[in-house]
Amino acid sequence: MPKSVVISIDAMGGDHAPAIVVDGVQILAKKAKNGSLKILLHGVASEIEPLLAKNPAAARISQVRHTDTFVAMTDKPSQAIRKARGSSMWNAIEAVKTGEAHACVSAGNTGALMVLSKVLLHMAPNAHRPVIAASWPTARGASVVLDCGANVECAASQLVEFAIMGEAFFSALHGTKKPSIGLLNIGTEDLKGNGIVREADALIRRADLGLNYQGYIEGDGISMGAVDVVVTDGFTGNVALKTAEGTAKLAAEFLRQSMKRSLLTMVGGLLSKSAFKELKSRMDPRKFNGGVFLGLGGVVVKSHGGTDGYGFSNALNVALNMARSDYAEHIAINLEELAKVTSKVEQEGVSQ
Amino acid sequence: MPKSVVISIDAMGGDHAPAIVVDGVQILAKKAKNGSLKILLHGVASEIEPLLAKNPAAARISQVRHTDTFVAMTDKPSQAIRKARGSSMWNAIEAVKTGEAHACVSAGNTGALMVLSKVLLHMAPNAHRPVIAASWPTARGASVVLDCGANVECAASQLVEFAIMGEAFFSALHGTKKPSIGLLNIGTEDLKGNGIVREADALIRRADLGLNYQGYIEGDGISMGAVDVVVTDGFTGNVALKTAEGTAKLAAEFLRQSMKRSLLTMVGGLLSKSAFKELKSRMDPRKFNGGVFLGLGGVVVKSHGGTDGYGFSNALNVALNMARSDYAEHIAINLEELAKVTSKVEQEGVSQ
Repeated sequence: MPKSVVISIDAMGGDHAPAIVVDGVQILAKKAKNGSLKILLHGVASEIEPLLAKNPAAARISQVRHTDTFVAMTDKPSQAIRKARGSSMWNAIEAVKTGEAHACVSAGNTGALMVLSKVLLHMAPNAHRPVIAASWPTARGASVVLDCGANVECAASQLVEFAIMGEAFFSALHGTKKPSIGLLNIGTEDLKGNGIVREADALIRRADLGLNYQGYIEGDGISMGAVDVVVTDGFTGNVALKTAEGTAKLAAEFLRQSMKRSLLTMVGGLLSKSAFKELKSRMDPRKFNGGVFLGLGGVVVKSHGGTDGYGFSNALNVALNMARSDYAEHIAINLEELAKVTSKVEQEGVSQ
Repeated sequence: MPKSVVISIDAMGGDHAPAIVVDGVQILAKKAKNGSLKILLHGVASEIEPLLAKNPAAARISQVRHTDTFVAMTDKPSQAIRKARGSSMWNAIEAVKTGEAHACVSAGNTGALMVLSKVLLHMAPNAHRPVIAASWPTARGASVVLDCGANVECAASQLVEFAIMGEAFFSALHGTKKPSIGLLNIGTEDLKGNGIVREADALIRRADLGLNYQGYIEGDGISMGAVDVVVTDGFTGNVALKTAEGTAKLAAEFLRQSMKRSLLTMVGGLLSKSAFKELKSRMDPRKFNGGVFLGLGGVVVKSHGGTDGYGFSNALNVALNMARSDYAEHIAINLEELAKVTSKVEQEGVSQ
């Protein structure tokens, strides 16, 4: 565990950058112990410095690394690569590559961040593709869902990789030694679901990786906290995550409308104000901001593009927890083990 | 539109059958005009008749069709078929086949109901596989999502079939002439999403079926009511539906917990009781009970297996609306048109 953590930020990424970036650093800086945290802010100095002047706690721990260029939110990954060298995003990732920083955070263009991270940091040994892992509020606290959008189609062995990476990620965030793992499927019986999910289930049982694997879970199990780590492909994971966000928004909207239906309910609403505040906070998406690209040769955290300073500070917190954990060592052993198993399975054929 | 609708029910299907079935019929019977509705109850007469004795409105419109055998909730479809002939589920569907009934409803084993419906009713002309369509509460009222679990993997042309069937289904339920249609994807930009979804998007635009097609929507768009009809494969649709159910449950649970945090909030909660009741009713899954198997040569409605009488009455309502609509004629024309387009595309290759 490094004594002092250095986080490298793409200060120009996000809908409201660099203001939300500096706000986020300010929130974290106020809580950080002296000398425990250092921030590198990559971006346009003339925009960042006036903000730091207004946020002295942030200014105290930050260094500005000026660059004029940045990747636009609307750039396609292919465009982004061509003009990326020297941009705020590129430089932020490069600081992790050179070892100057322990983790990188950006609220910028997801596709570009994914591609540049892979180009600069390469994959971790025995990992094949980056995967986006996100935290999810549940009845038991929080779970991790992966993949949330990086890999639209996944082979069975990839899903097993996700399980290994998700376990290490959950441990890094929450300190749990053997988090429970489930495969997202459309039925808990053996016969349901698609071929790839069934193959992944067989592989994970056979691989004997010492995972706390609980078998299949269904969509309603995610929010119920049926398992700590939910494994699925990037298409399904992204749809599930956004569907849950939409449903939570709808419930909040219906609640607001219902509380306005009479004078009595309005008075009731006023008395219950603290309860609603607590409810809002428990389901606040900003609290769960910070998707991590797992499987790379370094830590990269993607913040939601439209978040505010509070949301960005939570993405920074995720980076901080990852930098302080033994995440990289944890997955290295299991991925090596998986590589042995998959090559053995490939030789023998996929018969169980 | 038939003057008097006949609905054929598998009275032994569901976790709490036949009690919930008779309760559901009773609720509907009280609202039905004299002579407008007739019910066939297939199942064990000695179990059903005492229930009818206690529910005179239901008894007035019901005929019991005795059979001793039924498909168990835990039977696999392959087992179910072997012993299905003469079962309550088989007989309920057969009444639609012979033309005695306009629609069939069952809260029984989904897989068995799907297989038996296909065996007995066959597919509608130019439809290839049955699909499960379900209603979904939204900020604008209700949307229809399909497929909710029948087809784990789907070709692009199947997704276009779903769009056509979903349009007709939404019209049957709500009377809307040109409901809006969206394809569920993980990004609204052209480049995102998987190959099949992109291919379906191209095909739907090219086919010129006169659909009110709005392009891609993301998961959060479902609950927001971005479109009337959400088209997706059965794996994604099932995960989305159950994820939303889980999230709504979690929000309700968090609300309950928060209202108990102090005396003040508890008093507030009491005053707001009517508001909470309204909220609960608006998101009540029983209200949206009744998934329809579309694409068959007859109407089959699947009720949730664990529902109660109120929930079952809503599934009956769906069957009633379908029976009274011109749904079958509506899809026939569009499916024929699609068949022409797909065969043309296949000849030319999938280049756009």
